[in-house]
Amino acid sequence: SRSKLIGDRSPVRRFNLNNVTITPDPIENQEVVLILTPMARFYQEYWDNLLNLDYPHELISLGFILPKNKEGNAATAALQAQVTKVQKGPLKNRFRSVVIERQDFDSPITSQDEGERHKMENQKVRRSSMSRARNSLLFTTLGVETSWVLWLDADIVETPPSLIQDLAAHDKPLIVPNCYQRYTDPETGKLAERPYDFNSWQDSPTAQEIAAKMDPDDIILEGYREMATYRSLMAYMADQGDEQHIEVPLDGVGGTALLVKADVHRDGAMFPPFPFYNLIETEGFAKMAKRLGWAATGLPNYKVYHYNE
Amino acid sequence: SRSKLIGDRSPVRRFNLNNVTITPDPIENQEVVLILTPMARFYQEYWDNLLNLDYPHELISLGFILPKNKEGNAATAALQAQVTKVQKGPLKNRFRSVVIERQDFDSPITSQDEGERHKMENQKVRRSSMSRARNSLLFTTLGVETSWVLWLDADIVETPPSLIQDLAAHDKPLIVPNCYQRYTDPETGKLAERPYDFNSWQDSPTAQEIAAKMDPDDIILEGYREMATYRSLMAYMADQGDEQHIEVPLDGVGGTALLVKADVHRDGAMFPPFPFYNLIETEGFAKMAKRLGWAATGLPNYKVYHYNE
Ligand SMILES: Nc1nc2c(ncn2[C@@H]2O[C@H](COP(=O)(O)OP(=O)(O)O)[C@@H](O)[C@H]2O)c(=O)[nH]1
Ligand SMILES: Nc1nc2c(ncn2[C@@H]2O[C@H](COP(=O)(O)OP(=O)(O)O)[C@@H](O)[C@H]2O)c(=O)[nH]1
Ligand SMILES: [Mn+2]
Ligand SMILES: [Mn+2]
Repeated sequence: SRSKLIGDRSPVRRFNLNNVTITPDPIENQEVVLILTPMARFYQEYWDNLLNLDYPHELISLGFILPKNKEGNAATAALQAQVTKVQKGPLKNRFRSVVIERQDFDSPITSQDEGERHKMENQKVRRSSMSRARNSLLFTTLGVETSWVLWLDADIVETPPSLIQDLAAHDKPLIVPNCYQRYTDPETGKLAERPYDFNSWQDSPTAQEIAAKMDPDDIILEGYREMATYRSLMAYMADQGDEQHIEVPLDGVGGTALLVKADVHRDGAMFPPFPFYNLIETEGFAKMAKRLGWAATGLPNYKVYHYNE
Repeated sequence: SRSKLIGDRSPVRRFNLNNVTITPDPIENQEVVLILTPMARFYQEYWDNLLNLDYPHELISLGFILPKNKEGNAATAALQAQVTKVQKGPLKNRFRSVVIERQDFDSPITSQDEGERHKMENQKVRRSSMSRARNSLLFTTLGVETSWVLWLDADIVETPPSLIQDLAAHDKPLIVPNCYQRYTDPETGKLAERPYDFNSWQDSPTAQEIAAKMDPDDIILEGYREMATYRSLMAYMADQGDEQHIEVPLDGVGGTALLVKADVHRDGAMFPPFPFYNLIETEGFAKMAKRLGWAATGLPNYKVYHYNE
């Protein structure tokens, strides 16, 4: 009843942010990780991979944001069914908490077809809308107890089970693995892999010159023939060796999988929905973090895999 | 016990942001207001004024952030004693929830003396640190249920009891009353009042020219003789009439008292700790909100009062 609820109101919660540690050994130190996923479609492979993460589930909070359209409704129903199953199942599989949000603004592009999504002229509107979705999710789920935020796209279908610990061990404010895609080579018929995400890069003089001549309201996009930036893309830095933990400094990051110390967000770093130094969304986020004193790191040989439509 | 806690984990919380209304009649619509206060010192007059707000307390969540220095420790103890008293007192006085955070970075200026605080060369460092404190508080307390955020400085000692409803009735994304200070006129010995906060202003061509010539890392400050901006200050727009609800458009806002629709923050609007269009903290926040499509409004004749040291 109402008055019971009021009687229950906790007298005061006091937090010392210094007591929330953010260390290279997050399991030992019982650090809470918030996994945030903007989700347009539900993929069972994403969910199965998430369940396979061997970071203790009682230290993982999940947050999702889904668009309010027909596809978003279907994805919400599928997600909710899976979440309910896990949260009612064996204790050790249950997550600390789960929040599912519906986005209260329209997605600008209704088609989720890969070709349509990637058209250059659609990118600014689309990525601005994605930024708002990410910010809304972040601002409403980040708590006092959160040590780490793992951004994980809904179409990342394969990662090492030790993803969180592996990334955290590097003790970096922002760290991003290399996002690839598996496919069947049409010539050989054999399974192969290719780079997928081109948003993790090191800046180039050419890109800076392009930016200097641009209107402050325009954005530089990566991976388009029409706009050659000559940036060094992490996508092409992977080599055959098994040095999984080689680090490279980055100026732009992608968000398909991205581990961030919660203090970076608490300082104010968000996903600019407007051009910020001619950058937007996750790339703008890396720039904003840099302005706040936090540098980005990439792991060219540490791979995660994107769904192949 | 631990396993009891795990057994209690709620299976799933689902939120539709569309169901959280943000309307000009927030009491009727049971809208939750989050009052956020960065606090260096505890003033009993602030607390008494807060308790006097006649917005239903069960719809008010409180969030505080205090520095980790000697003065901050004293303020935390005083605040916690008052909070505990209220939260254990009559149900109708209890707030929905209270969070007290301690800031885990140093305050750059130890002296809280008004003269020292306002020295021009101290402003950039000081306001950058204030921005981080505000962001940390915001990012960790804003929830899915929050409709409005009222920023209220710890030295605002007098407001109308209907402050929240009065401001919300204007239905604006950002709205700011005029912040004055009471004093005793040394000549007449009579009580008088004078403008206190000069951060709420309309931009001027002069200020824009100053900015155009400035290094992007510098900031324009308001209220300093060394830098005449010729901006129109809301501080000087008050008139003797009793038209309390006259509105003016603003380009910069102060944060002594400032009501913001939660969606503005959820979109990503925060307090830039770095120069953003040569603006910082609350003034930079107004600019960032504008970039996101949300304009600021001022109420020159609606007054709140700052403590007089
Ligand atoms: N909430 C929300 N999520 C979206 C929307 N569009 C895409 N997503 C999700 O955001 C992430 C990135 O989008 P995606 O289309 O895969 O980008 P791409 O792989 O870079 O082409 C994925 O997890 C999508 O499921 C949207 O409009 N709203
Ligand atoms: N958390 C925190 N709050 C502070 C700090 N310095 C000032 N404040 C609070 O922030 C608000 C604005 O600061 P104040 O010094 O009053 O600014 P002024 O009135 O513009 O000179 C007030 O509520 C202060 O109590 C700080 O270092 N940390
Ligand atoms: Mn994708
Ligand atoms: Mn003050």
